[in-house]
Amino acid sequence: MSNPFFKNKGPFLILDILNFLNIKTETLTTNVEVTDIKDLFSSNNSEITFLHSKKYKELASKTKASFCITTESLKNELPTSCVPILVENVLVSVSKITSMFYPDATNDDFDNSTSYINETNFKDKVIYGKNVLIGKNVSIGTNCKIGHNTIIEKHVSIGNDCSIGSNTIIRNSLISNNVKVLDNCVIGKHGFGFFPNKTKNLRYPHVGIVIIEENCEIGCGSTIDRGSMSNTIIGKNTFLDNQIHIAHNVKIGENSIIAGQVGIAGSSIIGSNVRIGGQAGISGHIKVGNNVEIGGGTGVIRNIPDNTKVMGYPAKNIREFLRDNK
Amino acid sequence: MSNPFFKNKGPFLILDILNFLNIKTETLTTNVEVTDIKDLFSSNNSEITFLHSKKYKELASKTKASFCITTESLKNELPTSCVPILVENVLVSVSKITSMFYPDATNDDFDNSTSYINETNFKDKVIYGKNVLIGKNVSIGTNCKIGHNTIIEKHVSIGNDCSIGSNTIIRNSLISNNVKVLDNCVIGKHGFGFFPNKTKNLRYPHVGIVIIEENCEIGCGSTIDRGSMSNTIIGKNTFLDNQIHIAHNVKIGENSIIAGQVGIAGSSIIGSNVRIGGQAGISGHIKVGNNVEIGGGTGVIRNIPDNTKVMGYPAKNIREFLRDNK
Amino acid sequence: MSNPFFKNKGPFLILDILNFLNIKTETLTTNVEVTDIKDLFSSNNSEITFLHSKKYKELASKTKASFCITTESLKNELPTSCVPILVENVLVSVSKITSMFYPDATNDDFDNSTSYINETNFKDKVIYGKNVLIGKNVSIGTNCKIGHNTIIEKHVSIGNDCSIGSNTIIRNSLISNNVKVLDNCVIGKHGFGFFPNKTKNLRYPHVGIVIIEENCEIGCGSTIDRGSMSNTIIGKNTFLDNQIHIAHNVKIGENSIIAGQVGIAGSSIIGSNVRIGGQAGISGHIKVGNNVEIGGGTGVIRNIPDNTKVMGYPAKNIREFLRDNK
Repeated sequence: MSNPFFKNKGPFLILDILNFLNIKTETLTTNVEVTDIKDLFSSNNSEITFLHSKKYKELASKTKASFCITTESLKNELPTSCVPILVENVLVSVSKITSMFYPDATNDDFDNSTSYINETNFKDKVIYGKNVLIGKNVSIGTNCKIGHNTIIEKHVSIGNDCSIGSNTIIRNSLISNNVKVLDNCVIGKHGFGFFPNKTKNLRYPHVGIVIIEENCEIGCGSTIDRGSMSNTIIGKNTFLDNQIHIAHNVKIGENSIIAGQVGIAGSSIIGSNVRIGGQAGISGHIKVGNNVEIGGGTGVIRNIPDNTKVMGYPAKNIREFLRDNK
Repeated sequence: MSNPFFKNKGPFLILDILNFLNIKTETLTTNVEVTDIKDLFSSNNSEITFLHSKKYKELASKTKASFCITTESLKNELPTSCVPILVENVLVSVSKITSMFYPDATNDDFDNSTSYINETNFKDKVIYGKNVLIGKNVSIGTNCKIGHNTIIEKHVSIGNDCSIGSNTIIRNSLISNNVKVLDNCVIGKHGFGFFPNKTKNLRYPHVGIVIIEENCEIGCGSTIDRGSMSNTIIGKNTFLDNQIHIAHNVKIGENSIIAGQVGIAGSSIIGSNVRIGGQAGISGHIKVGNNVEIGGGTGVIRNIPDNTKVMGYPAKNIREFLRDNK
Repeated sequence: MSNPFFKNKGPFLILDILNFLNIKTETLTTNVEVTDIKDLFSSNNSEITFLHSKKYKELASKTKASFCITTESLKNELPTSCVPILVENVLVSVSKITSMFYPDATNDDFDNSTSYINETNFKDKVIYGKNVLIGKNVSIGTNCKIGHNTIIEKHVSIGNDCSIGSNTIIRNSLISNNVKVLDNCVIGKHGFGFFPNKTKNLRYPHVGIVIIEENCEIGCGSTIDRGSMSNTIIGKNTFLDNQIHIAHNVKIGENSIIAGQVGIAGSSIIGSNVRIGGQAGISGHIKVGNNVEIGGGTGVIRNIPDNTKVMGYPAKNIREFLRDNK
């Protein structure tokens, strides 16, 4: 969860973390400092991690974390160097601890820190429209244009030669050189991730950001959500048409072309040189290979290997689809 | 059609109503006052109702209305206490009479009565962004935030602890406590309801409102239309993702979760604890039960009973769908 | 490519055009003036045209153009009055030449020439909201309303009795009398047309405009792209619901009704009196006849004759679809 934007409010004593989770312990040395929360693979000594499924037991056995949020049935997968913290619901507890370290990553209220661009240092550097707002911790390269009523909220870096349209909102995003973001887009808001709860759903933090690599174009009315635990990435020279929705943690490769009204659900990974026709949808946690063509209206619910052409709902080989539907 | 917002311009003499419809009569006492127009079930003495289909003959036989817009072939379904007014096209006539009583409910031009929030009584009560506009007849509770360029048009009530994003437009809506409406939404505009007409379609009034109950979240770029004859309702703790379209008169229960780009057509009723995957569509006048799961991309064209999981276009049992499409 | 808006920067010497394409020639008289670039059918003496497919050999044999961009294998289809200019990729070369004649049609950066409406001649003629912007070369008829934060960019003509919502952006469009464009729309931006290229896609000019004929309504959050080589047209009294996407060069007839979230891909032609259900999608270069009904969720990938009702993905006869999916 290393992130250039969200400030880590730690370290916290493990005692404070246990108290926050309402866990009592007598066996733990409670004045140890915990510096960050990360996944099993990334975490290091003096950090806390989590294990919620047997799927990750291989990773768990090698974690360098000092503490791990887990359950009674999984605790034995951890090395002796890692102290298990037993809870009922691992992900809810992780959500709470992440909120301790990164409180700004849960709350997506509008950015109240913005100023009119003509009251900032950008006023002589950027070509801008009327009523443009700029938040804190924003950088903008040379030769950029920002349209009317557009809001660059906090935590945004924009490269050189970029053109941002009007009525667009961007936050928590790294935008490379020569990127166009057209009108009415919302880039970098938190994803649709939360723990359902009968009376009041529990939002979890989105510590990831949106990365748009160079030469990309994002069409009008599109939404690209930032990642929860990893980043949402649009690869170099990939073009998105209008009204596209890219959910949190999605990664799209280079030179891909995505037509209007396509939706890609959370955590899916799309290769390079992929073409996706209008209104196609891709389920969450799917892997689409390189050089894939997906016909308009297709519903992708399973992984798609490299160099294939698919169409249909659910997606199948395009020749098969057309033959079956003469 | 009781409604907290649209002002009833009645009563009108039945003579005025008949004149407005270009109906001549000699058998009617024409100086009777008519106080409102309602459906067969809700209407009372001195009100006018309408009957346009045999489907409603049971309700018609018990109506308490004093007058009923109907046709020659249906007039005998009414009780003797209710005077039939015979017309060629019942719904067009109802539309015209509703426009007499509620002229403001047809016209959805932008609200020209708004003021900048810092010129209103809300300036010390609400945390607000730049360029926020507030219309007449608006109430806002404590601890609310309203983002940049957002327009709260006339006839809106917002509860406590709400967060409204930027570039969002709301009118004719009741929003309960702890609701989040994200950026670029349009809430409370009239639905897509009109009588097609070769040279110029005839818009009918939308007297309903949008009700969003407590703890809901509405994602970026979503549109929720207000009801025509009843209200559009989003139940408690229901979360909507980005780019969702909810048409007029739709009712959604509590604790439901609706993923990106879903569309629900007019007058459909969705239960509680329902989960709808991305890009699914639900036809108009459909009933979806409680505890239903609808897979991504599904097209629902028939009612769905409680406690079922469906997927496909058209929707069928999800196991069947997956088995048929291995 | 006659167009009321985009200024023709020609004429150019054929020498300049050849130099721009990096073509060397010794056989051509290079000081001839070329006045415009048009298609095979429309072009006249002293203009340049293009031929990239055998499909057009009939048109090619009758062209009146003085020059034609084409390939070695197609050059013999041209009449002797037309000098072939041989290139490797016809469409890329056409794109470059079009950019020479119409440089403003490639670049869709925000319009930096706009003024607040109260600083223009429209201030006493139009009923307008807060923060309305008007570009150059805009005309607006009598009795029009323009909502808050709306941007009428350059090259827009609006008729009488029109109502434009709030947060909407319009450019390069002809809007007839009595048209309603609701909130959050983007009308007249360039289409999703470009030549894919491994490191940097090449945008081609969109010289067409958007034409919205009288009595139309365009729902909230819709996008209508302007044409590349021809215009995008919405016929009289056609109503579009919310969140609809109409791609470049699409033509829709009169009295048609298009429900929410429908998408129509580039260059498709839809007839009159057509009804399209929610979330339906129509592929590019498709012809849909008159009096056609297309069910919600349908995916149209082949032409549809007049007077038919279709549903399904891909679209088939609606009775067949319902029978096959009982």
